[in-house]
Amino acid sequence: MEQYILYVPALLAIIGLIFMGAKYAWVKKQDSGNERMKELSASIKEGALAFLSAEYRLLLIFVIIASILLGVVAYVVPSTEYIIILAFIVGAIFSAFAGNIGMRIATDANARTTQAARTSLPKALKVSFGGGTVMGMGVASLAVLGLSLFFILFLNMYMSGEGSFYDNMTVVLEALAGFSLGAESIALFARVGGGIYTKAADVGADLVGKVEAGIPEDDPRNPATIADNVGDNVGDVAGMGADLFGSYVATVLASMVLGNYVLRDMREAGQVTEAFDGMGPILLPLVIAGVGIIASIIGTLLVGIKNNEAKEAQVQKALDTGNWIAIVITLVASWFLIDWMLPETMSMNFFGEGAKEISSMNVFWSALIGLAVGGLISWVTAYYTSMGKDPVNDIVNNSGTGAATNIIAGLAVGMISTAGSVLLFAAAIWASYAFAGFYGVAIAASAMMATTAMQLAIDAFGPIADNAGGVAEMAELPEEVRERTDILDSVGNTTAAVGKGFAIASAALTALALFAAFVTFTGIDGINIFKAPVLAALFVGGMIPVVFSALAMKSVGKAAMAMVMEVRRQFKEIPGIMEGTGKPEYDKCVAISTQASLKEMLLPGLITIVTPLLIGLGTAMISGNYTLGAEVLGGYMAGVCVSGVMWAIFQNNAGGAWDNAKKSFEAGAMVNGKIEKKGSDAHKAAVTGDTVGDPFKDTSGPSMNILIKLTCLVGLVIAPILGGHSSEEGLAMNTTVAEVNFSENENSVEKRVEVKMTKNEDGTTKANVVTTTVTNGGEEVVEEKVFEGTEEEVKAQLDKMSETSEDVQVKVKKVIKEVKEEVEN
Amino acid sequence: MEQYILYVPALLAIIGLIFMGAKYAWVKKQDSGNERMKELSASIKEGALAFLSAEYRLLLIFVIIASILLGVVAYVVPSTEYIIILAFIVGAIFSAFAGNIGMRIATDANARTTQAARTSLPKALKVSFGGGTVMGMGVASLAVLGLSLFFILFLNMYMSGEGSFYDNMTVVLEALAGFSLGAESIALFARVGGGIYTKAADVGADLVGKVEAGIPEDDPRNPATIADNVGDNVGDVAGMGADLFGSYVATVLASMVLGNYVLRDMREAGQVTEAFDGMGPILLPLVIAGVGIIASIIGTLLVGIKNNEAKEAQVQKALDTGNWIAIVITLVASWFLIDWMLPETMSMNFFGEGAKEISSMNVFWSALIGLAVGGLISWVTAYYTSMGKDPVNDIVNNSGTGAATNIIAGLAVGMISTAGSVLLFAAAIWASYAFAGFYGVAIAASAMMATTAMQLAIDAFGPIADNAGGVAEMAELPEEVRERTDILDSVGNTTAAVGKGFAIASAALTALALFAAFVTFTGIDGINIFKAPVLAALFVGGMIPVVFSALAMKSVGKAAMAMVMEVRRQFKEIPGIMEGTGKPEYDKCVAISTQASLKEMLLPGLITIVTPLLIGLGTAMISGNYTLGAEVLGGYMAGVCVSGVMWAIFQNNAGGAWDNAKKSFEAGAMVNGKIEKKGSDAHKAAVTGDTVGDPFKDTSGPSMNILIKLTCLVGLVIAPILGGHSSEEGLAMNTTVAEVNFSENENSVEKRVEVKMTKNEDGTTKANVVTTTVTNGGEEVVEEKVFEGTEEEVKAQLDKMSETSEDVQVKVKKVIKEVKEEVEN
Repeated sequence: MEQYILYVPALLAIIGLIFMGAKYAWVKKQDSGNERMKELSASIKEGALAFLSAEYRLLLIFVIIASILLGVVAYVVPSTEYIIILAFIVGAIFSAFAGNIGMRIATDANARTTQAARTSLPKALKVSFGGGTVMGMGVASLAVLGLSLFFILFLNMYMSGEGSFYDNMTVVLEALAGFSLGAESIALFARVGGGIYTKAADVGADLVGKVEAGIPEDDPRNPATIADNVGDNVGDVAGMGADLFGSYVATVLASMVLGNYVLRDMREAGQVTEAFDGMGPILLPLVIAGVGIIASIIGTLLVGIKNNEAKEAQVQKALDTGNWIAIVITLVASWFLIDWMLPETMSMNFFGEGAKEISSMNVFWSALIGLAVGGLISWVTAYYTSMGKDPVNDIVNNSGTGAATNIIAGLAVGMISTAGSVLLFAAAIWASYAFAGFYGVAIAASAMMATTAMQLAIDAFGPIADNAGGVAEMAELPEEVRERTDILDSVGNTTAAVGKGFAIASAALTALALFAAFVTFTGIDGINIFKAPVLAALFVGGMIPVVFSALAMKSVGKAAMAMVMEVRRQFKEIPGIMEGTGKPEYDKCVAISTQASLKEMLLPGLITIVTPLLIGLGTAMISGNYTLGAEVLGGYMAGVCVSGVMWAIFQNNAGGAWDNAKKSFEAGAMVNGKIEKKGSDAHKAAVTGDTVGDPFKDTSGPSMNILIKLTCLVGLVIAPILGGHSSEEGLAMNTTVAEVNFSENENSVEKRVEVKMTKNEDGTTKANVVTTTVTNGGEEVVEEKVFEGTEEEVKAQLDKMSETSEDVQVKVKKVIKEVKEEVEN
Repeated sequence: MEQYILYVPALLAIIGLIFMGAKYAWVKKQDSGNERMKELSASIKEGALAFLSAEYRLLLIFVIIASILLGVVAYVVPSTEYIIILAFIVGAIFSAFAGNIGMRIATDANARTTQAARTSLPKALKVSFGGGTVMGMGVASLAVLGLSLFFILFLNMYMSGEGSFYDNMTVVLEALAGFSLGAESIALFARVGGGIYTKAADVGADLVGKVEAGIPEDDPRNPATIADNVGDNVGDVAGMGADLFGSYVATVLASMVLGNYVLRDMREAGQVTEAFDGMGPILLPLVIAGVGIIASIIGTLLVGIKNNEAKEAQVQKALDTGNWIAIVITLVASWFLIDWMLPETMSMNFFGEGAKEISSMNVFWSALIGLAVGGLISWVTAYYTSMGKDPVNDIVNNSGTGAATNIIAGLAVGMISTAGSVLLFAAAIWASYAFAGFYGVAIAASAMMATTAMQLAIDAFGPIADNAGGVAEMAELPEEVRERTDILDSVGNTTAAVGKGFAIASAALTALALFAAFVTFTGIDGINIFKAPVLAALFVGGMIPVVFSALAMKSVGKAAMAMVMEVRRQFKEIPGIMEGTGKPEYDKCVAISTQASLKEMLLPGLITIVTPLLIGLGTAMISGNYTLGAEVLGGYMAGVCVSGVMWAIFQNNAGGAWDNAKKSFEAGAMVNGKIEKKGSDAHKAAVTGDTVGDPFKDTSGPSMNILIKLTCLVGLVIAPILGGHSSEEGLAMNTTVAEVNFSENENSVEKRVEVKMTKNEDGTTKANVVTTTVTNGGEEVVEEKVFEGTEEEVKAQLDKMSETSEDVQVKVKKVIKEVKEEVEN
């Protein structure tokens, strides 16, 4: 088995895809109802695909520009190969393809769910969850498949080379970072553009429809109603899918990068064996991801209800059961995989603490922490956003004194909700690091993401049910149908809020893993915020999510205004539209949302990508110090992460809580001891709150995930530029690279290793390595080596030296560490 | 002059106090109007003093507890003396006294301003600004006087001791930190408690008065109206005063601490002379502060208008003129002072870059940056919050589509406004550091704060004018009087928003200077966020301001509810109250606000003070690593600062913009091409926005200043615990403290300095210092020293050694730096 392990993830991904295909076929086979329903479903599908194809056109331009930039990086940096461009493009295509599948199935499943709801609730759940399953499986399987195939390809291309295992693997993983960058770029378009689309359509439809014309939601006379339903798919299905696709790929990639570092430490301690081609720690996250797909398949098969009279609680329980089973299977499998694939103890270098012997079980504990924290953050999120719980009730109560107090209460709920999640998150960082260093942090993220297929299935079922309700309304089906879809929709609202909690937790852990990979890629020895430029960058980074959120919110406003104008025009110009005899031009509204949302996402997108480039490369060029550039960029990344996580939780939870506070009035809510119903002043205040919360929870809040991940990914891709150049700078100075003493033992037979790298006048590089022992009797040179050639050759030679346990680098590092610690104490 | 320089700041402060006394007497001499006006003014004064005395009772308990805790610190840490308790108590008393003066004069000046407005606008400005001047002078003069006197006292107590200058000065400055902590603690009560008070009274008065009973603002029939007017004084006068008092003291203190480090670096380079008792860099910030008082006196004398028909613009210009003149005088004086008090070049250790020779003019450039950035941030703030500018107009436009869009637009303005201020702030950090290290950053803050007296005069005049308008309304004076006070009030609103910008900028720079002082106090070599626990603390720190803000906002809601209940009760139970025949019980409303606000501030206050203790000491105790504790606490402090600055700017500016968007409707505002007036739907939407913004800009936003400063101050006070213990830990290990090579020149006659500190079994400490030269011919010990005695004695000896240029510490540091840089490159 060991020698084939490399192919296992791809195999498991293919099984996932086959399962997805079968599920897809099953959903398509279901009855999609009467003509009116078919027509509505087709309109929504058409609108959704119209958005996608507009998005693809914009994407094409983006991909071309990004590819050129990547070409420049590949040209400048020796360890970055041109193949990164291919990986980038395929990553983008895979992510887009996964989103496309999801959109298609979601828009196919809506009318079929409605039709199923005409017979029974269990059937309706089966169809809508089936649609979600297709989406979930598609995303997870394509992610694992893409990563696996590229990894195998790159291994064959680069591992046979001359250099060390570590260097060659770095080339492999850096090329793989292109795949991740491609995936995350699509997420930017899908999540941010989609987020703007969905709310612009929603707000536009409501403002003119509900408020001005006084017609109910999803009324077929409203020209924006199709756009509104398209929006649910664009934002919640394709956007969420692309977001998790990106997180998934980035998490696994970061774990692999950190696995490579673990292997280097192990090699120094002589612990690397031939098992798993000597790359167990690198393969582990990929295999766990693959196993997660199978666990998710089992989980989805167990979701179902029998009772046609079931209510929200039973449906929720059915989903929870499937979810927990998938998680437990993954956990148990991880235990066996970790035990099997990792050596019993591993030597890991802990930053500032030196090498420690880590039991492989520590890695399992990290995985457990990841799963536990993912679950707990979801639970905290549910508490703050669920109907009937204190926070939402508090908002309901405050609606009694008007919109202003409702808003203040909602903002306060969102703000306070950051406490629980952030404390959990901080504890997870600390604990998983304590168990297994940053590799542990990355494995925690990987474990959390392993059941992405299941999470996404649960998440994507919500908008399908929402759409199904819309179809029922627009097709004027009997009340009981809408009641059934409403049960599913209501559960879907809770799973959506929880899903957002999961998405931000995973994005944050992913960003952290990428951050760790960034530091190791650049070779800097940490990010010291006591350096003023780093501190300044931390502040600038902290500001970016705030400004990004504002831009996203304003974009919604602008796009919604465009929609309002169009709907007003149609109401005025199309004869008989209000009587239901004139047909509204749905497609025009769809087109307006599409264009406005894609146009509006350009500025925030640009800020996300360009700012880290400016900060990192700008600092490096202005100061002439590339190491400082890397450190300043690291400070910026940390600022974006800290502030981004805060604003994501704040906005998601405030929005979710406002939404459910409004919904609380539908069944009649207790406000300061009085029951208030829909239409009361308190309800109106709650509607205002919900309107404020909409862009929070569906546009700017979820966009934070993309912002923090993409920031770290851009950093990671340019990391070699900052890391690489700095050594050239050093060489130009013609100075001793290191000259330190190292005492072997207390009775002090000192051994000194001295490396001097200089640049010759003809441009070649020379390295002298002298090892001296100093005893009471005097000094004695025991070894003297000279390497000459191109800079790359010399570096390769030095790197080779550093792979033996007697090497220079290790000694130098060790001595620095010791000197530092001693002085600190 | 040089030998008396130590006494100059105290002298200048006394001049400030004399000027204040004269101004106070002048204001008191003015006519305070008819009986009704006198009665109203007396009620407000009584309410304000009732709040103060309730606050003092709570403070007494707090001061006792804090004093005990400080006693514990003094017991544990050798370098902290018990006198810190006295300094703490006096700091608290001085700050409270300054607030008390301000409240008294503000409540005396209101009716007198109204009376003056009956004759002319210029007179009204003179009286109200006179009141503000008393406040400003009182705060600044007491701050400088307190710092100077304690500094002189402590110098006499501790500088004559046996130890090195540096160590003794550390003891002096640490005791002085107690004064700063005392001042900032009062600020916590005044700013947070006052902020809750002012908005609870305002919202409570409006909700029942304007909304339910339909009577205008400041109507004497409203029982909460006196409480509302008291609130303006409590929040905007006493709160702002205590906030700036705290910033002022903390900034000067931090500059002095960093000056002490500069002196140490200079001593190593042999640059310290006898001039200014050999402590020019320490005295400089204190002297600049003193000169700033005189500059402010001149500035205030130049504020005035001649024309009775003047409008807002002229009044604003009069204030601006005085302000700019004070700033320019301070700047010019700083140039001469820096040139005179600092040597032409100074050797400063730059973190990670080693010693650099810094021209004294670099310090001046840092001061210039501080003044410039303070001005620019005020200007940016004014842009985002002023009527007629794009951001406010955008909110006005969005009011046309209802409260929800108004809220979204306001939130977006607040969020986007962080960009300009944060970029300026980041640039200031970077640039002032580049010029003169963290000493430069602190001097930038000091320069910015130097004209605090003037800033506060401008700031405190606003609420006086606001109150004067209230008195005019309640005393039913002719329309023209109210028109004149309205002009002053309107200018006051702008200066209030700008003042908040100044307050947060100064708080942020102060926090930064304290942060730098913290790092140097603990002796850690930076704060590396690539260590997982530090990163986790950064996240937790980032969360605290968000949660604090939410708690403050919720507190306003709770306190306002209590007020609403009371006003409703009075309306129901007091016969003839609505007809004006029954007298409302103003004092009950005042009492309710007072109690509720002080009760509600306890939790956020506790979080502010206890969390850094838990994080720093908790980490140290759990891990047994005190250095790690210091580093983790540093990460927490950075998180609080970054997030706190963001949330302060966001909340202040959003609140200010909403306020002025509402005010825009008073004269009729252009909404989507149509003029909308007071009472329109758009105006109602704007009122909702303003109500949301009220706690933002008057409670939670300004509280951030206190949060970030107090966090850093608590860190600074416990810094010696974290720093001190760690060295004991190190000694217990019985290891070599440092053993490094140092090459004197390229042809390498190496000189090695080896220090070995060990703890003997009898508890005494021993240090061996061996200096060896290594040439081609072999090694030769050129010097060997042994120090023995108590740990303190040995340390003192080593410190003495390190004061020569050939000392150990410098060498060790230099070598570490070189090794690090070389390996990094």
